[in-house]
Amino acid sequence: MLNYFYYLTMHNFCAKTPKMGKNLTSRGEDYSKWYNELVVKADLAENSAVRGCMVIKPYGYAIWEKMQAELDRMFKETGHQNAYFPLFVPKSLFEAEEKNAEGFAKECAVVTHYRLQNDPDNEGKLRVDPEAKLEEELVVRPTSEAIIWNTYKGWIQSYRDLPILVNQWANVVRWEMRTRLFLRTAEFLWQEGHTAHATKAEALQEAEQMNDVYATFAEQFMAIPVVKGLKTESERFAGAEETYCIEALMQDGKALQAGTSHFLGQNFAKAFDVKFTNKEGKMDHVWATSWGVSTRLMGALIMTHSDDKGLVLPPNLAPIQVVIVPIYKNDEQLDAITEVANSLLNDLRALGVSCKFDSRTTHRPGAKFAQHELQGVPLRIAIGPKDLENKSVELARRDTLTKEIMPLEGLTPKIKVLLEEIQVSLFTKALNFRDTHITEVNSFEEFKDVLNTKTGFVSAHWDGSTETELKIKELTKATIRCIPLDAKEEVGVCVYSGQPSTKRVLFAKAY
Amino acid sequence: MLNYFYYLTMHNFCAKTPKMGKNLTSRGEDYSKWYNELVVKADLAENSAVRGCMVIKPYGYAIWEKMQAELDRMFKETGHQNAYFPLFVPKSLFEAEEKNAEGFAKECAVVTHYRLQNDPDNEGKLRVDPEAKLEEELVVRPTSEAIIWNTYKGWIQSYRDLPILVNQWANVVRWEMRTRLFLRTAEFLWQEGHTAHATKAEALQEAEQMNDVYATFAEQFMAIPVVKGLKTESERFAGAEETYCIEALMQDGKALQAGTSHFLGQNFAKAFDVKFTNKEGKMDHVWATSWGVSTRLMGALIMTHSDDKGLVLPPNLAPIQVVIVPIYKNDEQLDAITEVANSLLNDLRALGVSCKFDSRTTHRPGAKFAQHELQGVPLRIAIGPKDLENKSVELARRDTLTKEIMPLEGLTPKIKVLLEEIQVSLFTKALNFRDTHITEVNSFEEFKDVLNTKTGFVSAHWDGSTETELKIKELTKATIRCIPLDAKEEVGVCVYSGQPSTKRVLFAKAY
Repeated sequence: MLNYFYYLTMHNFCAKTPKMGKNLTSRGEDYSKWYNELVVKADLAENSAVRGCMVIKPYGYAIWEKMQAELDRMFKETGHQNAYFPLFVPKSLFEAEEKNAEGFAKECAVVTHYRLQNDPDNEGKLRVDPEAKLEEELVVRPTSEAIIWNTYKGWIQSYRDLPILVNQWANVVRWEMRTRLFLRTAEFLWQEGHTAHATKAEALQEAEQMNDVYATFAEQFMAIPVVKGLKTESERFAGAEETYCIEALMQDGKALQAGTSHFLGQNFAKAFDVKFTNKEGKMDHVWATSWGVSTRLMGALIMTHSDDKGLVLPPNLAPIQVVIVPIYKNDEQLDAITEVANSLLNDLRALGVSCKFDSRTTHRPGAKFAQHELQGVPLRIAIGPKDLENKSVELARRDTLTKEIMPLEGLTPKIKVLLEEIQVSLFTKALNFRDTHITEVNSFEEFKDVLNTKTGFVSAHWDGSTETELKIKELTKATIRCIPLDAKEEVGVCVYSGQPSTKRVLFAKAY
Repeated sequence: MLNYFYYLTMHNFCAKTPKMGKNLTSRGEDYSKWYNELVVKADLAENSAVRGCMVIKPYGYAIWEKMQAELDRMFKETGHQNAYFPLFVPKSLFEAEEKNAEGFAKECAVVTHYRLQNDPDNEGKLRVDPEAKLEEELVVRPTSEAIIWNTYKGWIQSYRDLPILVNQWANVVRWEMRTRLFLRTAEFLWQEGHTAHATKAEALQEAEQMNDVYATFAEQFMAIPVVKGLKTESERFAGAEETYCIEALMQDGKALQAGTSHFLGQNFAKAFDVKFTNKEGKMDHVWATSWGVSTRLMGALIMTHSDDKGLVLPPNLAPIQVVIVPIYKNDEQLDAITEVANSLLNDLRALGVSCKFDSRTTHRPGAKFAQHELQGVPLRIAIGPKDLENKSVELARRDTLTKEIMPLEGLTPKIKVLLEEIQVSLFTKALNFRDTHITEVNSFEEFKDVLNTKTGFVSAHWDGSTETELKIKELTKATIRCIPLDAKEEVGVCVYSGQPSTKRVLFAKAY
């Protein structure tokens, strides 16, 4: 069934040819332009008529669906269930948790009216009906803690009602001023977990566990190595007592926060008066976490692996893992190739490989090759008349851009293995890049020099003060990406203030 | 993996006991109250702090997820792909298709501002920042034709770009004045397919095909018989030239529109100037369809099958198909029962049955029975010490409320068959009810009498005029639910006006 689905969807993905990769700006020329062009040319997403909001196109959405499916499986395996809460948050609820409100009020979409009417002054035009003003404004959720904790109040009386382990797949809106496809959009898709616990220890453990789930997902499925760490106070989620995060490094040496998991303490329980009777019969406020990843991960995926020819996709997330392209001069040849291709498709599908025979007659093989490269299909098989004679195929790897003649016999298990190799190889390559771009520095000169030349993460001692952190940000544009969970205790002095420090933190310029 | 998921989720579904079914109002007493109570008591959904918006609780959401998975599979099998378009529609785009705008402008949420600020007059409170007024208001999508057709304009130049077969899973908002959980809520979840075609015939075929997909889904998965038909002009989707629909009948004799599929003609293509070069090299406007089903289906599911003890779920949509409840007096007995239960669970899971051992020590068997009845678990297995001795179990069917002692040996394949039987039996029961509630009438007296006493669909001749239709609605509250696709041509006279008519249509009071 799954294979059938892939067949059909790929059939559509191939129906239109995206603009070709030869026009793609190179990374060296202009990394930012390369990214923007790639997203559009590979048919992943495009800007919409709504300022800052994107359209996620079918090929991009198919990758997001694969991410969703895997994450959803991991959430359910760790005991979570999905639910759905309202899109709107009444202003009075939004106000309740002060820090959270302060953090998000600056950038939210506000619904003030519930009706349009014909504009009496402009025929055929509509205007807001002034009679239809809401008594209380509604905020389009920038995050759902407020509406969810207001709901949890009705669900929790006793420790027997805990834990609540709920996740929501939803759209959220943050009125960002400068937007970029996937990386920062006014509306984005995400999942937000919201859990309620009887004890602080349990909530902390949950927050850390979900950060671990994100790390596993990023590394094993997206092939993106991440540093697990804690955010500093100034970088924490508004309303959190501790924010766990996973930080990734893009090819241009800038960091990208790929997921966060917050220990919210009792802040929301207090703001919404959510108490429970504990095992000892005493009343206590409930402990909370929340955690999320979003379509921003698409940006991380693209910027970690792709190259000047286009998208490079890890096989675990590729909507099509193998594409077969026929090379022929007449119908007879095509028929013979089709027979071999269909047999290959069947064998590959039986092994759970998603694959497609690109038999379009409207495109030449060269155009097909360019398209599949641009769209990051991990393996391409070309079959021509010579191959038929020799009982072989030409196999091309998207990640290394290498080609090889392979015998048809015994091909499918080799492809299966090769896909796994590509998955590992992409991760290893990204890991090497990341690891060689974590630079320990011991002076502020060195700090600035590394940031400006080598780029990447700078591992430096910091005195723990927000003042120093902000000063460094002002001077270098670098922020503390995280305090790594595995940071060694060591005696040192702050790279900026010279004050004592016990561990190194990771600075970087970031998306 | 799937089974493991069910195990985990069911573990959570059972963690809290919903309010018991004994307090459920009976259908005979007050059908409407019964429905409202059932939705809440079975833990499917509840009202939220936002007027007219609901919270879909985990158990309710798990059923919706099963619906989504099946529908998504069917859409992909018919060649559709998912994508995602913005939540907001700029007012100017919303205006473009006049009828569509007129139909939805009355009931939409309008975003006018993009920022809140601290209220200088009210410490700790927020107010809309008057400086942050949008230049153009944004409508929260009540449906996405406008934003999507504005996007398609950029995707379509030639017949080679067609068809576009795209679906979106999304939330939409319609500012309904009177709301009821699942049936009519201000925000609801749905899918909306939006397709673009080169010819009228192809678009019509698509609209009819997707209505057929909905009918198949309703009948085979939801076990709800439906009538496939066309809407009259006054009941059509705003902006459509033809609306196909599936109409179901609830136990109280009221109809429920369960899905619609619209042939939009060239209306949206004209409104958004979407033209293409056809095979003959001439420019033409594109032909369109749109089609959707929503969380309203949850309401249909509940009202078709459930009874005075609570929810009755068709096995194909039940998050847990079989629950095993141990009956024991001491740990030794529990241990022995657990061993048998675990072996049963393994065997059932191997057959793809989702099942759960309800071993909670906090609840007595009676309470567990009541909960599983209330939540509609299709099969319940009770195992006590006597059963262990006799190598048997007690098997109870939720739909018939019958119990049977069954030998343990060979039990699992019998359960698998039984689940299929229940699925068919629920459909047959609903079909019998529906078929005996389609009454042909030939006079307006008879018409009113059937509506008021027997209820259900009234099959009557109608003169085809909107005037008559509206008059009948005014007098009886019944609307034309559809002109059945399989309506026979026959000579007749309109039940109200006495004017000539060539076929019968179905009237009913409706949700």
